Amino acid sequence: MTPQTPSQAGAAVKAADRAHVFHSWSAQELIDPLAVAGAEGSYFWDYDGNRYLDFTSGLVFANIGYQHPKVVAAIQEQAGKLATFAPAFALEARSEAARLVAERTPGDLDKIFFTNGGAEAVENAVRMARLHTGRHKVLSAYRSYHGATSTAINVTGDPRRWPSDNGSAGVVHFWAPFLYRSPFHAETEEQECQRALQHLEDTIAFEGPATIAAIILETVPGTAGIMVPPPGYLAGVREICDRYGIVFVLDEVMAGFGRTGTWFAAEHFDVVPDLMTFAKGVNSGYVPLGGVAISGAIAETFARRPYPGGLTYSGHPLACAAAVATIGVMAEEGVVEHAAHIGATVLGPGLHELAGRHPSVGEVRGLGAFWAVELVRDRETREPLVPYNAAGDANAPMAAFAAAAKKHGLWPFVNMNRTHVVPPCTISEAEAKEGLAALDEALSVADEHTV
Amino acid sequence: MTPQTPSQAGAAVKAADRAHVFHSWSAQELIDPLAVAGAEGSYFWDYDGNRYLDFTSGLVFANIGYQHPKVVAAIQEQAGKLATFAPAFALEARSEAARLVAERTPGDLDKIFFTNGGAEAVENAVRMARLHTGRHKVLSAYRSYHGATSTAINVTGDPRRWPSDNGSAGVVHFWAPFLYRSPFHAETEEQECQRALQHLEDTIAFEGPATIAAIILETVPGTAGIMVPPPGYLAGVREICDRYGIVFVLDEVMAGFGRTGTWFAAEHFDVVPDLMTFAKGVNSGYVPLGGVAISGAIAETFARRPYPGGLTYSGHPLACAAAVATIGVMAEEGVVEHAAHIGATVLGPGLHELAGRHPSVGEVRGLGAFWAVELVRDRETREPLVPYNAAGDANAPMAAFAAAAKKHGLWPFVNMNRTHVVPPCTISEAEAKEGLAALDEALSVADEHTV
Ligand SMILES: Cc1ncc(COP(=O)(O)O)c(C=O)c1O
Ligand SMILES: Cc1ncc(COP(=O)(O)O)c(C=O)c1O
Repeated sequence: MTPQTPSQAGAAVKAADRAHVFHSWSAQELIDPLAVAGAEGSYFWDYDGNRYLDFTSGLVFANIGYQHPKVVAAIQEQAGKLATFAPAFALEARSEAARLVAERTPGDLDKIFFTNGGAEAVENAVRMARLHTGRHKVLSAYRSYHGATSTAINVTGDPRRWPSDNGSAGVVHFWAPFLYRSPFHAETEEQECQRALQHLEDTIAFEGPATIAAIILETVPGTAGIMVPPPGYLAGVREICDRYGIVFVLDEVMAGFGRTGTWFAAEHFDVVPDLMTFAKGVNSGYVPLGGVAISGAIAETFARRPYPGGLTYSGHPLACAAAVATIGVMAEEGVVEHAAHIGATVLGPGLHELAGRHPSVGEVRGLGAFWAVELVRDRETREPLVPYNAAGDANAPMAAFAAAAKKHGLWPFVNMNRTHVVPPCTISEAEAKEGLAALDEALSVADEHTV
Repeated sequence: MTPQTPSQAGAAVKAADRAHVFHSWSAQELIDPLAVAGAEGSYFWDYDGNRYLDFTSGLVFANIGYQHPKVVAAIQEQAGKLATFAPAFALEARSEAARLVAERTPGDLDKIFFTNGGAEAVENAVRMARLHTGRHKVLSAYRSYHGATSTAINVTGDPRRWPSDNGSAGVVHFWAPFLYRSPFHAETEEQECQRALQHLEDTIAFEGPATIAAIILETVPGTAGIMVPPPGYLAGVREICDRYGIVFVLDEVMAGFGRTGTWFAAEHFDVVPDLMTFAKGVNSGYVPLGGVAISGAIAETFARRPYPGGLTYSGHPLACAAAVATIGVMAEEGVVEHAAHIGATVLGPGLHELAGRHPSVGEVRGLGAFWAVELVRDRETREPLVPYNAAGDANAPMAAFAAAAKKHGLWPFVNMNRTHVVPPCTISEAEAKEGLAALDEALSVADEHTV
């Protein structure tokens, strides 16, 4: 690999990728991965000089944007000091990261079990809940994503679970509130909330409350569609969990660390779970890191009895140093407040304005730097622009939408019939407006597919 | 945290750890983690100036030792260039790491699916095998460790599985060869091999060959005791897999990347699996990374049909850059050859010499930088120095052994009634001899507990 021009360098990167890299969630010969040369802030670029505004934050992890100099410096410093060390020791970066996370988690979630990513966090949260309660079943929601290891994919409620539906013993899916496509035929948020809680109560009654170890929910479901729960719903779930001795797990892998305009999304709803999973934003994905924040009561269960779980890189010093620096940057630069502000003043109003002009927009919902735009063929019937889990030709309208966005310099997040607006939480007002303008163009292409 | 002396700094690190870090595999209030200040090469040290020769390589990951300047520099450079990026793109570090791994894996294992660690690699290997064959069962060995996510812990064959025995649908454990404690009452390696293969054949016959997706084995079981398989065993398993259309998965998370004195342990036995998992040594643990190397036939299964698995940090650029640098260092510095040499000339002979003088040593076995010393109460009966899965008082003799080693400046790897000698593959002859001398002292303490 000693190519001359940038384009040749990109071609070499691409060729080696196609020869040797096996990609997530993909038919290996049907993909055509863009070779990326660099990234900074809210932008990235390829080897041919094309530059994209990133409305995806990677996979919604780069909450402080790319290449923040302070976090880069912290990684470099930690690499020079102690890049790696085993989990059974006390290390400065590990201690400090745990302290900074625990300071921000709600309630008494003060013990931090570190993992490499979100799926492992969910795996461990479920194990803790099962052993703490001595019960086996786990209730989770349709329209959710919790990761791709066995337990994480089995509690997941989207089609990515189907091919891995093994070993799901004890997992029961229920329906969470989503007024726009109400599973409960509700017409108001209040009704949706009340019916969703009733549905959960009923499901628990028929599953047997004393068999249920945990209820796991994304505080604000992310990949599945950014459905902000109605006021009272999560508090209602908390109350149900308390009533039946069920462990309440909130998955904040995507919603946490500033994404919704608070450190954790749970703050919006004034609920404190028993376990909270996190990853992504904790260090903006600069080094793989995730974890579980653990309540006092559950930590107590494993005070004198061994916790039977672990991993080689639990509390990896480089990952922890990146978390310490990221949390520092977020605090110093007011990143959380900025996310709230940009959502309330630019992204929210801007997306609603687009919705007013584009017939393909069925609904806009979200908060902070966490927005979904639901695309429909028909605003009246709310028929999605493409069918659930569409592929190939059936997905052509969404593919055309995405291509149009890219043509206008915007890299969009696309899932089923939705585009999510999930830029770095640090995105400037000018950048946000630039992105909205590109979306405007792309939505015109989507409009062509409406009835 | 603005302490004055190093000891005070260490105390602060320790205090924050005890307040906020939830540790793997531990009763949280019964542990007393040493605060570590730094590490270099084969040594690490605490805040009080105590220095230890590391016979553990962390958790058997630091194959090139700590703080190798070239790998540190590569991490620093990549951090400054592109610390993180999403998995669906082609990136230079990712492409290059995949190419370098694929160049070294046996046979046609030329596609690399990257994960964050070993457990995720096993999860994905099992999913690939199940989808490739359309079958569900997985056969794995007692005396094994494959990780702590749901499928990985369920295929594991050690007591760490017991509390997580949920969702193990389809996992069947069988016995692998281990002449010193032969499950087959064999008296020679040849007999052990032949009987172990017969046992596996019988198990397959009674489970139903057409129900079995995969057989997963550590090429040389690691944590469970470094039982080098007898000649012909793995080739026999390969033949059985071919006969029944079963996917053969070799787990080289611990045995791979130089540990046994070859790039991969499979080379010693001239077998090519269909899937091979790796982690740890791939970048010496400097940044969390693992993966699965995939045969042409299995990659073909997912050529035009999506592979239904993935993770946010698949092929993380920082982790991949560390792998590129680590593999480069290993090639340039002859680390693999050095591991073979130090095993054959210093560690092996030295351990056998100790065995000759210490009644507590029941058996010494291993190769390269991968050795187990089996401690016994009685050489005749081979009664282990402590019972299987002993804790507390029952484990006192092993605790005394470990304490003695530490007193002599050696940090030992201890599991059940064994100590493993698994230093960095880069350990010098002088360091190895220093470690053996400390082991000599510690074994004298173990000797006191023999009959
Ligand atoms: C809410 C949620 N939980 C868990 C995960 C899984 O995280 P990872 O991909 O790091 O395993 C994700 C990933 O997108 C997520 O969004
Ligand atoms: C052979 C083997 N497989 C898998 C694993 C799990 O790796 P991780 O701890 O990175 O998940 C280990 C860890 O020690 C291992 O030794």
